[in-house]
Amino acid sequence: MFETELYVPKNELDSRLTRVQREMAGENLDGLLILQAAGLLYFSGTTQACQLYLPASGRPLLMVRKSFARAREESALEEVVPFRSPKEITGLIRDHGYPAPARLGLELDVLPANLYLKTVETFAPARILDASPLIRRVRALKSKWEISMMRVASRQVDAMVRAAAQALVEGMAEIELAAIVEGEARRQGHQGLIRTRGFNQDVFYGHILGGPSAAVPSFFDSPTGGTGLSPAMPHGPGWNRIRRGDPVMIDICGAHNGYVVDQSRVLSIGRLPDPLRGAQDLALRVQEAVISAAVPGATFEDLWLKAEEVARAAGLSEHFMGYGADRATFVGHNIGLELDEAPVLARGFTQKLRPGMTFALEPKFNFPGRGVVGIENTWLVTPEGCERLTTTPDDLIEK
Amino acid sequence: MFETELYVPKNELDSRLTRVQREMAGENLDGLLILQAAGLLYFSGTTQACQLYLPASGRPLLMVRKSFARAREESALEEVVPFRSPKEITGLIRDHGYPAPARLGLELDVLPANLYLKTVETFAPARILDASPLIRRVRALKSKWEISMMRVASRQVDAMVRAAAQALVEGMAEIELAAIVEGEARRQGHQGLIRTRGFNQDVFYGHILGGPSAAVPSFFDSPTGGTGLSPAMPHGPGWNRIRRGDPVMIDICGAHNGYVVDQSRVLSIGRLPDPLRGAQDLALRVQEAVISAAVPGATFEDLWLKAEEVARAAGLSEHFMGYGADRATFVGHNIGLELDEAPVLARGFTQKLRPGMTFALEPKFNFPGRGVVGIENTWLVTPEGCERLTTTPDDLIEK
Repeated sequence: MFETELYVPKNELDSRLTRVQREMAGENLDGLLILQAAGLLYFSGTTQACQLYLPASGRPLLMVRKSFARAREESALEEVVPFRSPKEITGLIRDHGYPAPARLGLELDVLPANLYLKTVETFAPARILDASPLIRRVRALKSKWEISMMRVASRQVDAMVRAAAQALVEGMAEIELAAIVEGEARRQGHQGLIRTRGFNQDVFYGHILGGPSAAVPSFFDSPTGGTGLSPAMPHGPGWNRIRRGDPVMIDICGAHNGYVVDQSRVLSIGRLPDPLRGAQDLALRVQEAVISAAVPGATFEDLWLKAEEVARAAGLSEHFMGYGADRATFVGHNIGLELDEAPVLARGFTQKLRPGMTFALEPKFNFPGRGVVGIENTWLVTPEGCERLTTTPDDLIEK
Repeated sequence: MFETELYVPKNELDSRLTRVQREMAGENLDGLLILQAAGLLYFSGTTQACQLYLPASGRPLLMVRKSFARAREESALEEVVPFRSPKEITGLIRDHGYPAPARLGLELDVLPANLYLKTVETFAPARILDASPLIRRVRALKSKWEISMMRVASRQVDAMVRAAAQALVEGMAEIELAAIVEGEARRQGHQGLIRTRGFNQDVFYGHILGGPSAAVPSFFDSPTGGTGLSPAMPHGPGWNRIRRGDPVMIDICGAHNGYVVDQSRVLSIGRLPDPLRGAQDLALRVQEAVISAAVPGATFEDLWLKAEEVARAAGLSEHFMGYGADRATFVGHNIGLELDEAPVLARGFTQKLRPGMTFALEPKFNFPGRGVVGIENTWLVTPEGCERLTTTPDDLIEK
């Protein structure tokens, strides 16, 4: 149905299974039941309506409600069976020779409460544990195949920001610019949907914002906000018109075959005035300092502390990652099948960088009434340091 | 921040509160804690990061984490207070003079399990009940103000289908057509995001599908499917190229200030051949028969039965709402702040139609290897029958 390269290869699924079963052994779990789309895609290669059982040892069992034919084709797993009612799940697991799990892992951060309660009942007397941290640890290490998907998504955002630079004219509304950028995204094969894990953290492509509106905070955990079009979706582009000298923040996600990258560039019509121009240079210096420190063995907290230190030394702490009380307390986040993967580049995240991890680093400075400047790229941790996945030149784009 | 007409008026919030408190009394609930964005918008007028407490009697308490300033501005509620940690919630409720609830309602169909478990702990020893059915009943009855929002969304889908008709050329990929339609949506002020309530029911604008791909089923509960671009988002437009005589299904949502409408039209390059053409006429007859029967007092199940009867009488049951085993077992759904509101037009939904309810009716016929034809409009139940909210003429668009 799709080009073969879009199917998750069998050796990918095998390696993911090996790693998750190792983690399961560490927590003495007998099985994992995966229900959420991102998890299904990662461990089975399909996001059809399924329940996926990963036993402590042995092969995964993919149980499909709809569409069975598509799941069969999209997944490289061997054990793929249909079901009609969730009541059949425990029977199917038993029929495939797996003992009833005494300790069952679920993704409790994303599973709706009713579905959780029903699953507890179905698997009683199993003890239910939150396997989300474990699964996120496994997913944090990307394979070469996954990185190749993120490189395609990087080409999307490059085309998107070029389209923005070409289309930008004085007096244009943010939403008019977004229409052009988003249209280009789709022509590049962008999947549209950006998956986030956080509850209520709806995002639509990103933040295409001109001037003061970028500095308006919102519910969304980000250094930029934007008014959005209405209180119903109160961030991202709105009807605000872009003026000469406004910093135009193009903070956008690419998304190819599930994999997301995040990139921000600043455009302006005419010369970007100070103090915005100076803060834009500073953001590049923050990026440089953080990436120099981003080697395997450093912690994600270290990266946050390094970023804060550079901002503070320049006297711009108050504007860093938001303004005043609404400042965000992170300077980046891991990224992959979901925009908001863990760990975050923030205080308390003492996990060490390991080769294969991918993160977005987004030092930004917020000037209420003026706008937001800064830079964002998506990076791959390698044994020697970091490789940049997003490819657009870092320069401020003045036209 | 926005035009005043986009804020939910105070009298709207008052009327919603009155109705939900009446329902709460019926179920002996002491309070409702609303956490999901659509619920927050409905009962408070803001989707900032909030927790909203609705007491059995008295005024709602809106507790805001971020952005407080925006929530204050966007919400017409009187009691709006900041908080930093969820631990403060019960104290804030007590400080506002409300007794600790013995029976607390939550939206258990959408609340993540971890958040549910934490809330249970916070409010212990309260008994927690699923208030989602109650809330959905209240939300099912739309006000004049809400209908005015849906009329704006209806203008969006009309502009979108016109843009599709203008742009459609032979050999175009579905995703290229979608790029144009979606760009037009944004220029019309479409919010982009389509909220769905069902777990994993991700949708991106809708189903813009040309020919055979429309007939490909997917995980998504719909008579159309489509390949999508990859297994990661396996429905909606893909790289399939549109040929002369293909039925081009433009099944799209408008979304204005939170309110969604759903409309489908069929386009074709040149004359649409039989049996598709005949089935398209039949879909219109199904619509006519159902709408004739859609008067207050009829049940949503009645509408499904009527639709099935017309399809069966014409000998096209096997193609109705999908094909074979993957047939959908509904012919429409209520709609509003979420695409998939209740009741559904399906067997077992014996709730009666009441003035103020809004639903999408979408009789469609699926021909594997050929495509999907049919019609969809969004309707308002009035005391006399149904008024159509979506405005595009029902005709097949041949060019």
